[in-house]
Amino acid sequence: MRNKSGNLIIFSGPSGVGKGTMLKSCLESLPNLRYSVSATTRPPREGEQHGREYYFMSREEFQNMAENGGMLEYAEYNGNYYGTPKAYCEELLEQGIDVVLEIEVQGALQVKKLCPDALMIFVMPPSIEVLENRLCGRNTESAELVCGRMAIAREELKAAYNYDYVIINDNLEQAVDELKAVIAASHCSVKSMKKFLDEVNK
Amino acid sequence: MRNKSGNLIIFSGPSGVGKGTMLKSCLESLPNLRYSVSATTRPPREGEQHGREYYFMSREEFQNMAENGGMLEYAEYNGNYYGTPKAYCEELLEQGIDVVLEIEVQGALQVKKLCPDALMIFVMPPSIEVLENRLCGRNTESAELVCGRMAIAREELKAAYNYDYVIINDNLEQAVDELKAVIAASHCSVKSMKKFLDEVNK
Repeated sequence: MRNKSGNLIIFSGPSGVGKGTMLKSCLESLPNLRYSVSATTRPPREGEQHGREYYFMSREEFQNMAENGGMLEYAEYNGNYYGTPKAYCEELLEQGIDVVLEIEVQGALQVKKLCPDALMIFVMPPSIEVLENRLCGRNTESAELVCGRMAIAREELKAAYNYDYVIINDNLEQAVDELKAVIAASHCSVKSMKKFLDEVNK
Repeated sequence: MRNKSGNLIIFSGPSGVGKGTMLKSCLESLPNLRYSVSATTRPPREGEQHGREYYFMSREEFQNMAENGGMLEYAEYNGNYYGTPKAYCEELLEQGIDVVLEIEVQGALQVKKLCPDALMIFVMPPSIEVLENRLCGRNTESAELVCGRMAIAREELKAAYNYDYVIINDNLEQAVDELKAVIAASHCSVKSMKKFLDEVNK
């Protein structure tokens, strides 16, 4: 009677904020959570497996799929397409598995349009200064490159208002706990519980 | 910079669903959560302390307070008033403490009108049959009384659609974990994080 389908989770945040580390920790402890595998037209690098790192496709395959509504979102970077295949996500969701998409803000808004029930989570640095320090990295990069990245990050941070939840990654353990709480709570939302409510109130 | 004010939590569910036990467990493990003390015009019973079980008031005091907007919600039962004093809640919320109101659905909707940001949580039995068994209790009560209670419960269950979250109390430990997750997640909602976002994006 309870709603057994999984939730689609959109996970965004500026480069350098620690999204990957947070997700890794969550995926290790939540057996019901799965990372979405993206599709790409770039050639596989050594060690990369089809269906694990990416679904590798030709441009024709990718374009056909996208034109036929087979991608939840997609974009072109450096002459290659990257996207989220819809069928793969839907299959997991129907099995009751939560699927997380780690995507940038433009893609996130595309997915939200197609899947209005998607849970949108944005990860923030504790401050602009902290993000700048992280992006500066080991001082081996030019000031110009860091400035460029900061300009992109500043733009991305503005998009946080469009998300449902905002998690500050200051302390990793706390941020992961908050991410887990948000995912757990999403299964109790009145929207997720609608089937159950209809059954009890019939 | 983070939003330090507490959240107002409305906690409802039919009689017999186990709200009290769930809250007790939560209050023991969440130091930042406080139970709201109600006001009443009924006389104190032996052992009851003013400010602990209830704020005991005369009818005149209560009516004055209610007329001057000093109650978040109130109602009359068996010739006595019961209500939630606003000032007490606001003081705790400003201190960053989450305040939980265990109130029935009519009162809940009154509070929601005054405090649209309140987090509304409804506790459900796993099924109508389970609730009926719990309400029947030890078989010492008349069938008429049980039928009357079930009729009230059925009406109350319909109100669940107006809440933000629905928790099924089937397994107490799981229900308490879900309640804690919902409370933790509420502090990451984009609404709760608005001050922080404004600060970062200024």
